[in-house]
Amino acid sequence: MTKESYFTEEDSAEAVNARMGDNINPRLAEVMSSLVRHLHAFAKDIDLRQEEWDLAIEFLTRTGQICSPERQEFILLSDTLGVSMLVDAINNRRPSGATENTVFGPFHVAEAPIRAMGDSINLESKGESCLFEGRVVDIDGNPIQGATVDVWSDNADGYYDVQQPDIQPKFNNRGRFITEADGIYSFVGIKPVAYPIPDDGPVGKMLSALGRHPNRPAHLHFLITAPGYEKIVTHIFDGEDKWLSSDAVFGVKESLIAPFEPNTEKTQWRASFDFVMVKS
Amino acid sequence: MTKESYFTEEDSAEAVNARMGDNINPRLAEVMSSLVRHLHAFAKDIDLRQEEWDLAIEFLTRTGQICSPERQEFILLSDTLGVSMLVDAINNRRPSGATENTVFGPFHVAEAPIRAMGDSINLESKGESCLFEGRVVDIDGNPIQGATVDVWSDNADGYYDVQQPDIQPKFNNRGRFITEADGIYSFVGIKPVAYPIPDDGPVGKMLSALGRHPNRPAHLHFLITAPGYEKIVTHIFDGEDKWLSSDAVFGVKESLIAPFEPNTEKTQWRASFDFVMVKS
Repeated sequence: MTKESYFTEEDSAEAVNARMGDNINPRLAEVMSSLVRHLHAFAKDIDLRQEEWDLAIEFLTRTGQICSPERQEFILLSDTLGVSMLVDAINNRRPSGATENTVFGPFHVAEAPIRAMGDSINLESKGESCLFEGRVVDIDGNPIQGATVDVWSDNADGYYDVQQPDIQPKFNNRGRFITEADGIYSFVGIKPVAYPIPDDGPVGKMLSALGRHPNRPAHLHFLITAPGYEKIVTHIFDGEDKWLSSDAVFGVKESLIAPFEPNTEKTQWRASFDFVMVKS
Repeated sequence: MTKESYFTEEDSAEAVNARMGDNINPRLAEVMSSLVRHLHAFAKDIDLRQEEWDLAIEFLTRTGQICSPERQEFILLSDTLGVSMLVDAINNRRPSGATENTVFGPFHVAEAPIRAMGDSINLESKGESCLFEGRVVDIDGNPIQGATVDVWSDNADGYYDVQQPDIQPKFNNRGRFITEADGIYSFVGIKPVAYPIPDDGPVGKMLSALGRHPNRPAHLHFLITAPGYEKIVTHIFDGEDKWLSSDAVFGVKESLIAPFEPNTEKTQWRASFDFVMVKS
C-alpha cells in the first residue's frame, strides 16, 4: 500500500492509513491508525448495512447537539459503553492493597469549602444521617498528614447541588477535609441514594434499546490528594444497593464497597473506609 | 462473565456486553457487542491516555455541534476515515464488469429537471464545455431502455448550486436523462474541477494534523436507476487530475476514470463512459 493506492474493500484501513503525512506527531499517527483499523474491522465483522450507518450518523449528531455547558452526552456514551472505566483503569494501575480508582463523573466542583473534621456536609434537613470516617494511609499503613479528602454526593432526592442550583444550598453535600498527623478523616453526611444518569437523550434511548437501566447504585465521590502521592479518584458504594451489580456506568469495584452499619449515637448510619495512597 | 460481574480491565468488553437484556433486537446486540469489543480493543492496543480521551470527547462534541441542515460533519468524518467508502463497498458488491459504486456525497437533489438527450446542464457561461456520452447496458452489453441517468456536478468555481443558492441558477449542472431503446445518453456540461471538502471545522483540523489535504479530484456524480436493476451511485473522474490518487474521501476507483479528450466540434472536451447495470 502506498500513498498513491486507490481504496479497495480488502485493504481499506491500509489505504486510509497510508495517506498520513510523514512528519506528523508520532503518537497521533499511532492512535489514529489503530482507530482506523478497529473502525474498519468493526464494519467488516458485522457487514455494516447502509441504513445502520445512516442511524449511526444520526445518533452521533443528536449526541453532539444535546451537549451543553450543563450536559455532556458523549461522556455519558463513553461511560455507558464502559470506555470511561477502561481508560481510567489503563491510566491508574496500582499495586494490590492501594485504593482503586473509579469514574470521576461530571459533578465535581473545584474549591469546595474546607471544613473542620467532624463537620456536616449536609446543609439540608433531608436524608438519613451517616457518619463517615477512616484514615488516609500509605501502602504500608502509615498515616498521611496533609491529605485532602474532597467529597461530593447527591442529596436524598438523588440530585447534586449543581443540578438544582435554585433548590439546594450551594456546596450542599460537598466539602474538603485536611488530615492531621493521625491521617484520620471524619464528617457527617447522608447515606447516599441511587439515581439514574440523565436518560432523556440519545444515550438513554440506546440503554433502553439494549435492555439496560440507567441507574447508578448509591455512592459517595472522593478525590484524595496528598503531596508526593498519586491522586485517587474514587467512590465508596453501599453494599446493600439493589443496583450494585448493574451500575449503568460500570463504576463498581469489589474493593470500593463500604459497610454501612446502623449507628447508635448522633447519626443513623456509620460507614468506615480507609484510603490507601501510592507514592507518585 | 455474567450480568452480575463487576468491571475489570481484563474483561472490560465482556462486562459491558454481558449487561445487555435477553430480549433485545438480535441485530442490535450483534452490532453493539462488536462495537464495544473493537472500541475496548482500540483503547487497550494504544494504552489510551486520559488526556487523549478528553480530546476525543471534545472533538466529537465539536463535530456534533457544527452540524446543521446545510452541513454534516459526522459524514465528513466518516468519509475522510474511509468508513463511508467501506460501507458502500460492503453494501454494493457486484460481479466483475458491472459499474462500481462510490460515495453518494451530500449534494444530490431529488427531482432535478428531466432534460432532452443532448441538452446542456450548464446554466452559466462558465467553465470548459464538455460533451458527455455513453450507454446504459446490462452485464451482457444489451442496451437498457428507460434507465434514468441523474447527473450532478460542481460548477467551474468548485461549488454546487445548493452551496451558492444566491449566485448559481437553480439546478445548475444537474439533470435527469431517460434512455431510449438504444440505451444511449448524452448531454453537455463542463469539464469538472477539483474542490476541497469543507475544512474549516473539526474534520479539517484533523486532516491538517494528519498531514492530509482536503481536496477531491474533479468528478461528475451519477445516480443510475432502471426498473429491474440495482441502482448505481457513482462518479466518473478526470484521469488527469492532480488529486486523483489522494482523494480526501477515498472515492476513486480505477474503473471510474473516464477519458476526457479534446473535442473538435461544439464542445472543448468529450468524455465517454458506459454504465453497466446488474439485475436486482
